[in-house]
Order: sequence, then structure tokens, then C-alpha cells
Amino acid sequence: MTPHELADLYRAYIDCLNARAFDDLGRFVGDDVHHNGRPLGLTGYRDMLMDDFERIPDLWFRVELLVCEPPHIASRLAFDCSPKGQFLDLAVNGRRIRFAENVFYRVEAGRIVDVRSVLDKTAIEAQL
Amino acid sequence: MTPHELADLYRAYIDCLNARAFDDLGRFVGDDVHHNGRPLGLTGYRDMLMDDFERIPDLWFRVELLVCEPPHIASRLAFDCSPKGQFLDLAVNGRRIRFAENVFYRVEAGRIVDVRSVLDKTAIEAQL
Repeated sequence: MTPHELADLYRAYIDCLNARAFDDLGRFVGDDVHHNGRPLGLTGYRDMLMDDFERIPDLWFRVELLVCEPPHIASRLAFDCSPKGQFLDLAVNGRRIRFAENVFYRVEAGRIVDVRSVLDKTAIEAQL
Repeated sequence: MTPHELADLYRAYIDCLNARAFDDLGRFVGDDVHHNGRPLGLTGYRDMLMDDFERIPDLWFRVELLVCEPPHIASRLAFDCSPKGQFLDLAVNGRRIRFAENVFYRVEAGRIVDVRSVLDKTAIEAQL
């Protein structure tokens, strides 16, 4: 895939998430996907995302910066949302917070197979 | 610059950091560099790095993953080090910790001019 094709794939993946079209996730995510070293598989990955949307009702993925070099995608995601209860072991309790996620993906055969994500917890703490 | 040239620039920048060759930093970093939205400038950026090496005597930058698409570089850095005292408001006190930094750079005219970094604080907390 070219950098442009990777970017198109990624934006379609993000649109899928924001549409909460979990049944379509397999178009973008591999059956044996790993997330931060954990072998979640597609089902576990979908469960993780559904849980995120449950705990953060106004969750929305906004791509702030996208860097593509096959077979990798790097994305900086900007979040502006209101998690219920605890989030990253912080008592957010529905307050509105803004933070970034810097995340790397490896793509094989047109599917995301590995994700290495870091959330900016320090930025969230500064807002509480 | 091509992706390959950006990668070469970046690896030379990392070599400069690991050599603690702070006088050479201006070969890689722009005079008006911003770091996480703060207009540090080259002098402030150098001061930040020198402070990091002071507080983390065994600091070493290891590039785990590098993704280049002009004008951006995305890097996942792996750290295995022993910060003195407080680190990210955590009482590390010289214990050895391993964590990642997912970081984006924008390059203009052959120099890094913007840095957007996230450290994996959650991973550090899990080790303390």
C-alpha cells in the first residue's frame, strides 16, 4: 500500500469508529490484532471499543495529525469528551476533558494488526 | 526531504542526544522550536534536555519504531532508566522503569520545529 492508500484506509477506519459501526470493524482490523502487546483479536478489540463508547458516551475520534509510511500509520488523535466515573484510574466523573492519543499501527494485507497507543494522562490530570 | 532523509536526520538527532552533544543540537532543532505547544526555542529545548539528563543519569534514547512522511516524523521511543526523585509527579526515586514515548515532529528546512510528545505514564505507574 502507498502512504496515500494507508491514509484512506485509516480515515475510513476512524469513520467506522465514529459511526459505531462495530459490525464493519473487520474490514479494517485483522483477526489476530494486538493492542499494546495484548493479543486481543478482532473480537477482543471490538469489545474494548464498545466498552470505551459505553464509558464515554460522547466519545469522538478526531485525527489531528497523520503520518503514513508503509507498513505503518502514526496518528495523533484529539479527544474532547466526558468519561463517566473513573478513566485511567482518575475520578473524571463526567467532567469534560481534552487530551491526545499518540498511536502507531502496523498494517498487513490491508488490515490493522498491531496497535501501540499512549494516552496523555498527564494532560488529563492537569484538568482535574 | 524524502522519508529516507528524514529518517537519517532523526537518527543523527538521537545520536546527538545520546552523546549529550548539546552544542550540536542546533544542527537538528530550529531556533523557534515548540514542544507540546510551548515556544521553548532552541535554548529552552536544550535546557529541557539537559535537565532530563540531570534527573535521569542513565537516560538513553532507543528508537523502537520510526515512521516518516514529509514533513513529519513519528517515533516510538523505548526507555529503560532510573530517574532520581519525582518523575511525572511519581515517586520513582531511582527505581528502574521501562516506558515508551510516542512522539511526532514537524521538520522545516532540515530542522525540527514542532514536537508533540506523550509519555506512557500509565505503564510507569504499573511498575511502582
